[in-house]
Amino acid sequence: MLSGVGLDTIKTFFNSVRSRTAELCVPLRIEDYVPQPVEFASPPKWHLAHTTWFFEEFILKEHLAEYKEFDPDFGLLFNSYYQSLGQRMIRTSRGSITRPGVEEVMAYRRYVDGHMQVLLSQVLSSEVRSLIEIGCNHEQQHQELLITDLKHTLSLNPTFPVYKDGFDLTRSSSQEKGWVEIQEGVYEVGFKGQGFCFDNELGRHKAYIQETEISKALVTNAEYLEFMEDGGYGNFILWLDEGWSWRETNRIQHPLYWHKVNEAWMHFTLEGLKPLDMQSPVCHISFYEAAAYAEWAGMRLPTEAEWEVASADLNWGERWEWTNSAYLPYPGFSTAEGALGEYNGKFMVNQMVLRGASLATADGHSRPSYRNFFHPHLQWQYSGIRLAK
Amino acid sequence: MLSGVGLDTIKTFFNSVRSRTAELCVPLRIEDYVPQPVEFASPPKWHLAHTTWFFEEFILKEHLAEYKEFDPDFGLLFNSYYQSLGQRMIRTSRGSITRPGVEEVMAYRRYVDGHMQVLLSQVLSSEVRSLIEIGCNHEQQHQELLITDLKHTLSLNPTFPVYKDGFDLTRSSSQEKGWVEIQEGVYEVGFKGQGFCFDNELGRHKAYIQETEISKALVTNAEYLEFMEDGGYGNFILWLDEGWSWRETNRIQHPLYWHKVNEAWMHFTLEGLKPLDMQSPVCHISFYEAAAYAEWAGMRLPTEAEWEVASADLNWGERWEWTNSAYLPYPGFSTAEGALGEYNGKFMVNQMVLRGASLATADGHSRPSYRNFFHPHLQWQYSGIRLAK
Amino acid sequence: MLSGVGLDTIKTFFNSVRSRTAELCVPLRIEDYVPQPVEFASPPKWHLAHTTWFFEEFILKEHLAEYKEFDPDFGLLFNSYYQSLGQRMIRTSRGSITRPGVEEVMAYRRYVDGHMQVLLSQVLSSEVRSLIEIGCNHEQQHQELLITDLKHTLSLNPTFPVYKDGFDLTRSSSQEKGWVEIQEGVYEVGFKGQGFCFDNELGRHKAYIQETEISKALVTNAEYLEFMEDGGYGNFILWLDEGWSWRETNRIQHPLYWHKVNEAWMHFTLEGLKPLDMQSPVCHISFYEAAAYAEWAGMRLPTEAEWEVASADLNWGERWEWTNSAYLPYPGFSTAEGALGEYNGKFMVNQMVLRGASLATADGHSRPSYRNFFHPHLQWQYSGIRLAK
Amino acid sequence: MLSGVGLDTIKTFFNSVRSRTAELCVPLRIEDYVPQPVEFASPPKWHLAHTTWFFEEFILKEHLAEYKEFDPDFGLLFNSYYQSLGQRMIRTSRGSITRPGVEEVMAYRRYVDGHMQVLLSQVLSSEVRSLIEIGCNHEQQHQELLITDLKHTLSLNPTFPVYKDGFDLTRSSSQEKGWVEIQEGVYEVGFKGQGFCFDNELGRHKAYIQETEISKALVTNAEYLEFMEDGGYGNFILWLDEGWSWRETNRIQHPLYWHKVNEAWMHFTLEGLKPLDMQSPVCHISFYEAAAYAEWAGMRLPTEAEWEVASADLNWGERWEWTNSAYLPYPGFSTAEGALGEYNGKFMVNQMVLRGASLATADGHSRPSYRNFFHPHLQWQYSGIRLAK
Repeated sequence: MLSGVGLDTIKTFFNSVRSRTAELCVPLRIEDYVPQPVEFASPPKWHLAHTTWFFEEFILKEHLAEYKEFDPDFGLLFNSYYQSLGQRMIRTSRGSITRPGVEEVMAYRRYVDGHMQVLLSQVLSSEVRSLIEIGCNHEQQHQELLITDLKHTLSLNPTFPVYKDGFDLTRSSSQEKGWVEIQEGVYEVGFKGQGFCFDNELGRHKAYIQETEISKALVTNAEYLEFMEDGGYGNFILWLDEGWSWRETNRIQHPLYWHKVNEAWMHFTLEGLKPLDMQSPVCHISFYEAAAYAEWAGMRLPTEAEWEVASADLNWGERWEWTNSAYLPYPGFSTAEGALGEYNGKFMVNQMVLRGASLATADGHSRPSYRNFFHPHLQWQYSGIRLAK
Repeated sequence: MLSGVGLDTIKTFFNSVRSRTAELCVPLRIEDYVPQPVEFASPPKWHLAHTTWFFEEFILKEHLAEYKEFDPDFGLLFNSYYQSLGQRMIRTSRGSITRPGVEEVMAYRRYVDGHMQVLLSQVLSSEVRSLIEIGCNHEQQHQELLITDLKHTLSLNPTFPVYKDGFDLTRSSSQEKGWVEIQEGVYEVGFKGQGFCFDNELGRHKAYIQETEISKALVTNAEYLEFMEDGGYGNFILWLDEGWSWRETNRIQHPLYWHKVNEAWMHFTLEGLKPLDMQSPVCHISFYEAAAYAEWAGMRLPTEAEWEVASADLNWGERWEWTNSAYLPYPGFSTAEGALGEYNGKFMVNQMVLRGASLATADGHSRPSYRNFFHPHLQWQYSGIRLAK
Repeated sequence: MLSGVGLDTIKTFFNSVRSRTAELCVPLRIEDYVPQPVEFASPPKWHLAHTTWFFEEFILKEHLAEYKEFDPDFGLLFNSYYQSLGQRMIRTSRGSITRPGVEEVMAYRRYVDGHMQVLLSQVLSSEVRSLIEIGCNHEQQHQELLITDLKHTLSLNPTFPVYKDGFDLTRSSSQEKGWVEIQEGVYEVGFKGQGFCFDNELGRHKAYIQETEISKALVTNAEYLEFMEDGGYGNFILWLDEGWSWRETNRIQHPLYWHKVNEAWMHFTLEGLKPLDMQSPVCHISFYEAAAYAEWAGMRLPTEAEWEVASADLNWGERWEWTNSAYLPYPGFSTAEGALGEYNGKFMVNQMVLRGASLATADGHSRPSYRNFFHPHLQWQYSGIRLAK
Repeated sequence: MLSGVGLDTIKTFFNSVRSRTAELCVPLRIEDYVPQPVEFASPPKWHLAHTTWFFEEFILKEHLAEYKEFDPDFGLLFNSYYQSLGQRMIRTSRGSITRPGVEEVMAYRRYVDGHMQVLLSQVLSSEVRSLIEIGCNHEQQHQELLITDLKHTLSLNPTFPVYKDGFDLTRSSSQEKGWVEIQEGVYEVGFKGQGFCFDNELGRHKAYIQETEISKALVTNAEYLEFMEDGGYGNFILWLDEGWSWRETNRIQHPLYWHKVNEAWMHFTLEGLKPLDMQSPVCHISFYEAAAYAEWAGMRLPTEAEWEVASADLNWGERWEWTNSAYLPYPGFSTAEGALGEYNGKFMVNQMVLRGASLATADGHSRPSYRNFFHPHLQWQYSGIRLAK
């Protein structure tokens, strides 16, 4: 945690995170800030305000003397799942909240940033340092969601708008082939070290792992197309029962954002519609698709513990990787008191863990013990497949 | 129709309609143009572009020599139900179309308006005059939807934003009491005269009407509250079977936009949250609620033919009035050739006719033969109750 | 009404209706009495008990001295929409009510029949005679539903069970070609005469009808196949907007109960799976399909008033015929006091009128003024198409 | 496995299992065999036939010379999720399959039982012995489902029918208080020994468990009522996010089958409606409710590994116990070849593991390594709560 490091480090971190959010918004027009394309996504404006509200609510209001709230309504509008029922009911209406507008939200950010500078010039308790660190990491998570949610919004536009040239997060560097071997035995998993982590990575604990091999390379678009051309989407035997229903109900035939244009596979990216690069890792895959692919390949997805143990030897960070582990509490998991305690524990059912990071993840944000999690049917993250056997 | 009148009249009409749309948008911020709060509503930006596309598609492209389309994508983005499947699928995603933005849509309007001035300075066939007239009336319809859809969007904001002070469309002038009597006999209904009408008002035809009486006054908030306080929402016997299910499923307890605050009834208006005015006509009522109220009052809703015959003696125009007539074709109804033919006929099932006009309706837009129509569960229009017996 | 006729006539009518119900059940096995295949259908056992409950509740309990209720629970189990909420909630669970069993329901029928014989040997007021008549007609309606609901149940069985050999209600006699002409003018519609009718046919009233022609023949399977082969199910322009959505959501490609087996069209009947007879009227058609077909044929469906006026010259009774009239109250419609008043009025929204009768309808049950009604998407009745122009 | 034991043992086992099924059906009337009350349940008739089909399909057809299939249609009607899409689509229509009827299904059972006696008099390979053992255990699973599904059906009957006097599976013997302590370390979990187990219990493997304590007693109705009276169902903070939505959407206020009658809590049992016994373990609880209760109690649910390690010291078998483990494959999990391979693996997502057994479970069927699993919202099993800390 940052609680033990110097104030300059904290300040630098805070300012760099806040700047990166602003930078991500440079290509946006005001209209882009508004839509909530699907229930599980949020508008850019909401991400901007919500992350700011976090600093105001948990840090400035509690720890900066005489801090005056920017606008009392903002707590109601920009908290997330925290707190009472009435307020949560607006979740699906985030895209209808046009006021405050972008300019007011930007003013809110400047106001909070300004007061944070004041706070950051003071002597801070380790508790406050820790809260700032959480706030920064929280904002980094929302930076990634801002990108993936925005991509979903733009994808619904039949003109395939470009977010930013040169900003295609679906490619990655060439991949090393081969397998990482893990020997059977007791390993430690969970966060270790001095830096920051989320509550769901604590505490480090022993786990028994069987002998296994994990692929160094992610499954590529070329390999996934083989599965498709082999009739993978129509072969009941390969799918989890619920995956098959999902596929049937939603008439899924390929990864999200793929389009067949004149017999060639294209995909929508933040650079617009582009030909699929066959050597890049397959992307925007649900857990159901990942599991079906693994079954077709005669292999399986790794568990999160296996992944974590192998991570030192993996080249990861280019794509969130579905594991076959459900998102559940680690031994001794406990939630913080109050609203911060609602952070992760609330969601520990019916979701699968993803490990790694994607090109949309802020640099340095992820780590080997990092636990990302989504419902098994969701495709809108930069999610892919790493096989184990 | 305008086809027989002078060019100046057409030009004046066109310009006044286009100006009114612009005027309605003055209080809007860019963010307000984007959301589609529910499937049956559309974003202001879409209304602005769609009405413009109508002039471009059906008039300028066909009838102005060398007209060059503003942007070929706009047809795809801003047509409505017209034409092919693929394009219609974006209907629920209108709120996610951030580009083109408001400024481009405004430029589109200016571009089309400019070319319309050119066209309007030429000798126009009666066909073209007629198309312009349709386009203007079409835009007036969308002006009203722009207002009602925007109200729905703003209503989802827990801060109850104000669209414009002094712009509360729920009040109306004091109402004359008493009953209009209709004698039994053959009457003519449907459009007559030289002016404009929609295809669904044609052709004028004879209808046999029984003796009846129609209230001169609309049901007021005070009267509706009596129904509520008498347990109307919980009394199965008063409701249509489907109305009861709708009420149960959606937990409906009062008209749309009503809020009980500290034991007093308030309602959300375009001026923000305000106390309910007891003498104003009740508003934002579904057909189901209107029918249950009429049953409770021991009366019924008028048919559209009765309403039309009585209209000369009614003070109408302050609130759309649910009739007990289903929206069906008049004898000899025929649709125009091509896409314009899809205008009204497509919707002639499962909807009920409303007659009159509301304070959101453009001046002079409605007339006694005008047939508005919505699904019986919808509440977001300025819809109220007139009784018959 | 029967109120003016002799007691023998009433008795004969009662006994013949009750016998026909029993006769329809002869081919049933106990298991067949139980299922409710879809929400809008009911189990045979429920039809048997519900029609009996009607006689007990409205006649025996009120008008037979010292009548003792068979079982107080039966009112709760076998009323329909009548009365309070709690009881209606079991509507979708009718197929789960295994007790009382078939034998007890049969005993209930015998018990009520026995007491009805006692009553029918007494001097009856015209009110009681009228109630008996309603009860008999009510049971005839349920006889038809018993058949159509049972057909739906059996159709879900991939072994295509036979209800009864020789009992295929989809065929009909050869049809006369040509058109019935109606002259423009005032006509009377609604029930006339002395016999029985339902409240929704009253009162007879004048209606103004335009000049029109109505086909003497129903549309045949051969003709409907032409529409299908011409791409009718895929041609957006032919469909009502809601019909198109219905078709899309439910992946409808042909009438209900049709199966393509080895390139030949078969259909499921109460005699099992059989080849489609091309000259028989098309059947198990929704209103949406009927309307699309009419549009394709360049014609329209008749209104119910037109149909009624033409009925004297039509050969009808072999198939329920969708009209383009919504099911709405006739002028002066009023409901009876009490639970009987819930009979028809509750359903006067979002349904379309069908005229005629089908081969499943009890002999003599229908008449020219008879108004049947169903939601526009339903296909499970023996419903077909008659064109007008 | 039985593969190593004597033929007499197998025969005895087979016959006793088949007899118990028959015995469970003694109180049933023919009508009771038919309904499928909800999608996740099945009719008794289906359970009877499906378990029989298993013996026919996997054993008799493969391993009894000259065996002639009873009826080729039965495979289509009574397989479950096995095999192709078309056949699976009838899953929700099981309650509509009235034919074959109960008598034919009983004849099917006799036919298969007779041929099984022939087979059981022959020398059997270990493969065949193993298949018979699977078939018997499979039938025991369906015996339990037969009971719980039937209870659901009867519960929908407002007359609260009695299945069998003296057959109330919700009570249990008095419970020992106190805690079982587990020391931190490596333990073995998964099936061991010679007897039968399902594929999902294999292979036995090492797991690292942290120090923990597990309650010897299950949570009682009295304790659960405390939670309810403390506002547990209305306290957002106690619930998983999805649990809260489930509760809200379905308006859940108490365990399944509970009814408040004249201010006293009753519950529906297989003996009919009875007062709640306060000292019995709470029952018919979803995972969401179990998790909320544990949160309220300041404790947690055990993991399945913890439960298994502690099982030697627990008095279990009176109630299925929700664990906080998701249903996932054990290390090295592999599915059998062919249709039998679809047995368990298909369902390893979005379900939670339950350990123990209930009073509805066949004697001797469960064991410490047994893994039962259901979706977290389901309440219809005899499922309860054991706490850990």
